[in-house]
Amino acid sequence: MSRILSGRMLGMEKTMIRRINDLADPSCINLGLGELKFPTPKAILDHVRENMDSWPLGYSPNEGFPELRQLIAEQAGDSVSSDRICVTVGAEEALLDTLMVLIEAGDEVLIPDPGFPAYPSLVRLAGGEPKAYPLLPEDHFGLRAEKLLDMVTERTRAIIINSPNNPTGAVHSLEELQTLARGVQALSLTVISDEVYRDIVFGEPAASLSALTERCVTVNSLSKSHSMSGWRVGWCVAPPDIAKAIRTFHQLAVMCVPSLSQYAAIHALRGFADHELRSNLEELRKRRDFAMACMDRYTDFPCMAPAGTFYLFVDISGRLAKFGSSLDAALKLLAEEKVVTIPGSAFGRVGEGYLRLSFAPPPDALEEGIKRIGRFFR
Amino acid sequence: MSRILSGRMLGMEKTMIRRINDLADPSCINLGLGELKFPTPKAILDHVRENMDSWPLGYSPNEGFPELRQLIAEQAGDSVSSDRICVTVGAEEALLDTLMVLIEAGDEVLIPDPGFPAYPSLVRLAGGEPKAYPLLPEDHFGLRAEKLLDMVTERTRAIIINSPNNPTGAVHSLEELQTLARGVQALSLTVISDEVYRDIVFGEPAASLSALTERCVTVNSLSKSHSMSGWRVGWCVAPPDIAKAIRTFHQLAVMCVPSLSQYAAIHALRGFADHELRSNLEELRKRRDFAMACMDRYTDFPCMAPAGTFYLFVDISGRLAKFGSSLDAALKLLAEEKVVTIPGSAFGRVGEGYLRLSFAPPPDALEEGIKRIGRFFR
Repeated sequence: MSRILSGRMLGMEKTMIRRINDLADPSCINLGLGELKFPTPKAILDHVRENMDSWPLGYSPNEGFPELRQLIAEQAGDSVSSDRICVTVGAEEALLDTLMVLIEAGDEVLIPDPGFPAYPSLVRLAGGEPKAYPLLPEDHFGLRAEKLLDMVTERTRAIIINSPNNPTGAVHSLEELQTLARGVQALSLTVISDEVYRDIVFGEPAASLSALTERCVTVNSLSKSHSMSGWRVGWCVAPPDIAKAIRTFHQLAVMCVPSLSQYAAIHALRGFADHELRSNLEELRKRRDFAMACMDRYTDFPCMAPAGTFYLFVDISGRLAKFGSSLDAALKLLAEEKVVTIPGSAFGRVGEGYLRLSFAPPPDALEEGIKRIGRFFR
Repeated sequence: MSRILSGRMLGMEKTMIRRINDLADPSCINLGLGELKFPTPKAILDHVRENMDSWPLGYSPNEGFPELRQLIAEQAGDSVSSDRICVTVGAEEALLDTLMVLIEAGDEVLIPDPGFPAYPSLVRLAGGEPKAYPLLPEDHFGLRAEKLLDMVTERTRAIIINSPNNPTGAVHSLEELQTLARGVQALSLTVISDEVYRDIVFGEPAASLSALTERCVTVNSLSKSHSMSGWRVGWCVAPPDIAKAIRTFHQLAVMCVPSLSQYAAIHALRGFADHELRSNLEELRKRRDFAMACMDRYTDFPCMAPAGTFYLFVDISGRLAKFGSSLDAALKLLAEEKVVTIPGSAFGRVGEGYLRLSFAPPPDALEEGIKRIGRFFR
């Protein structure tokens, strides 16, 4: 029988995050989603509702409306010109585009472990080999740039970093990013800096690698920063030659981002929702602290306050003997207690022994979910 | 100096359609766009405006809302189940997804010449080799299935067909599609049937290959049928094993299609805009006839009435000696007369000697544009 699918799809599956969420029914307490449940800011909804009849809604420029790219450029830095920007269908498409234009068969890409599960899949789709670099609990999951640079080989073509990090919530320090920037400059590598959680921080602002080196493709979106995941607006800011290739790939992949989503994004980046976003972030901080208090009350798992994101990355390794793996534990927890969590192994080998819990849900769901987790692991 | 871009991007550029449109300024008469200029149907706009505040606007199921997939399945045929469907960011993403999951290095894909310029680029992005099959003026650009099947080699993995065809407007006959269906069944090939212009026909409904063989991935969208290009809703209907892979690739590529666009699509496929669409099509038929009359009055180019699409494919070969190529002619026409047309060579070698003109613009623009074309080629 002849082959039906291309080799790149071998072993390729939906990410574990999605597969576990697919198993959940609506009666479950879902601490598994990588999504804020705040509604789209009212200022954005009002703006779209009131103006949609007067906006042209046909094809837009492939790389995005000039006004939107200008706003993104201004926020990316003083010297960033808008032709370095491509507006994409969420950060996901920006990552696909970037990897497809940079990576070919035989290339290695260094990816964080623990890290977003789509990274290794996207690298493989592009023909490359993902090589995990560890972010260790003893470093509070923070970047150790020297160690990372030691892993670079002749075949290494790019490094993906993600700060604040999904799933650990760690924010990489400016010093480590500076070391990384010097290293990639010397080695002629490209860093893909996934900054989708950059606005979800509870202390100091997270440093951005883009300010430190030009060898950086910065990926961002409105999904987390503006609770606008379903609008699918992301973008990347890339060096000019890479940006040109990304625009070409993007045209062939999706043509352009829906017009309504782009109009909404213009309003968002002009700051009209900032007041609502500040109060969302304040609420999120309260939920983080509440979730930590619940962990303390109902479980005996140690738990670190994350500097950013909306996840607790909970060390359950002490109880793993009973379950075999974090995946088995998460599946059993779902079956017995109807609580959705994501097994740490979904994020890499270092993640084994952990569960990722979102603290974005409302307090009653958080408390009930964590109470059940405590009961389950007792 | 080390390589920056991946090999797949070598020689890859924006399609000529987009590059020529990028050269045009707003004062030009644009007969170059592959887009209807009718507004989004009022029934759809009203529905979205009135309901958007009450809809959840977060992430949606990767493959699309169940209700939307159910509607697509019903319209695709009696026995089509909705798990064979993936909702995509326009037909463009459906083509990318399909080729990426089917094609790998060394595979050949047969593509129509003349045909949509993204086909060869998308095949190359997936690692395959596009091989053009001619659709000849002496056959009124119609499919000759036996001849097409004669071109199949051991390396041929898929065939792309497009009926009604962009740029010629030809609709392939049921008999030829039946011959093709029998052939691909025997040869274990997959046909990718791009049916985005299927609702833009002026005579008999266009036959669909999907009813004739299961070895068919059907690609469609609302861009042309509902004048909703900027909403970016497309889909594919695929055999189960291919559909599963497409859903996986789609999740990694864009995650999901924007929620508002999907709600709009549900309303569209429920038929709430059909009245407006019928009057749009009637208007389009008038513009086609008017454009043909203008061609007759202002030029001496022979011109066939297209059975579908909104393009005239005009044979200018008699005047090419003066210009060298249809590209040079189109560029000079743009520079001297400010009329945008697409050179036939953008669609393949058979297309050389032609210009593609859209008759979607309003009559005054059509008349003025064709008048200038007549003057230019006099």
